Amino acid sequence: MAVSVLRLGHRIFRDQRISTHVFLAARALGAYEGFYTGEKDKNLEKSVKKISEQWGGNFKIKHISSYKKFLKEWKGRTIHLTVYGLPLKKTITGIRKAKKLLVVVGGEKVPPEVYQLADWNVSVTSQPHSEVAALALFLDRYFHGKEFSRKFPKPKMKIIPQERGKLVKKSY
Amino acid sequence: MAVSVLRLGHRIFRDQRISTHVFLAARALGAYEGFYTGEKDKNLEKSVKKISEQWGGNFKIKHISSYKKFLKEWKGRTIHLTVYGLPLKKTITGIRKAKKLLVVVGGEKVPPEVYQLADWNVSVTSQPHSEVAALALFLDRYFHGKEFSRKFPKPKMKIIPQERGKLVKKSY
Repeated sequence: MAVSVLRLGHRIFRDQRISTHVFLAARALGAYEGFYTGEKDKNLEKSVKKISEQWGGNFKIKHISSYKKFLKEWKGRTIHLTVYGLPLKKTITGIRKAKKLLVVVGGEKVPPEVYQLADWNVSVTSQPHSEVAALALFLDRYFHGKEFSRKFPKPKMKIIPQERGKLVKKSY
Repeated sequence: MAVSVLRLGHRIFRDQRISTHVFLAARALGAYEGFYTGEKDKNLEKSVKKISEQWGGNFKIKHISSYKKFLKEWKGRTIHLTVYGLPLKKTITGIRKAKKLLVVVGGEKVPPEVYQLADWNVSVTSQPHSEVAALALFLDRYFHGKEFSRKFPKPKMKIIPQERGKLVKKSY
């Protein structure tokens, strides 16, 4: 069950922090890799890369120029997270059957073709909230909550959970 | 089980979108009200208010000047979401016993006192990701996933879930 995440329409000035949150949540909750369309953003790529280097694993992101070509050529199934879609509860069982899955999360304006090209349009509540929250909840449901204690290979830093305060084990 | 959310250290220029996502996720996933410290931000307050007016319910946010006073005077239990805390899985059963709960989510730098003042310091994975994702996953676990289909009273707009495209019912 390999899950990739595609973030649509990134804008450097406005979206840098939200897109970073999208990809860090994707990584932490079990996604394998990330893609984004919109403005190519070296700082976004750097900050995601830095997190992987420090905290382990191989999660990477890549800029792509055309979502349309990418979705059409994707060798797997595609789900678009949108507040307008069918409830997650009703669709998750079918989605879990996909062996290779691309999860598409929107930016400011999602082109109508995305709704047509996706295998599923799925809502995480029918209330407007956040693509970061929607993605996190989707991944959690998809992986049956098993990602909370995922181990990342070869970390340079590792948190040792504490009742109060901070403890980070560094191995470099 | 009334849950309130406190966002620490809001900065108008840098945090407006993330703080908006924090509060919209809080509202959509069952929190009752929001508070924030840091810079008072009329646009943040307006955009949260507008969402409540359009999509129903009474979720509101309020600026407070001192997190310390607020936490000390809070008549209920407090949980601080932090990557350094104890795993959610180990703590959630105890937390659910609280009848009135304040969930604290950090900004850039969380003052050390917050770790001391909170009843629980809890991590949603031990990987760095996003306060929006952490809050969403916490609320989902706290409410046993029941908030996905929550009804909001007196909405002016309501989404009718669709397989493809958008359908919004307007009642004004």
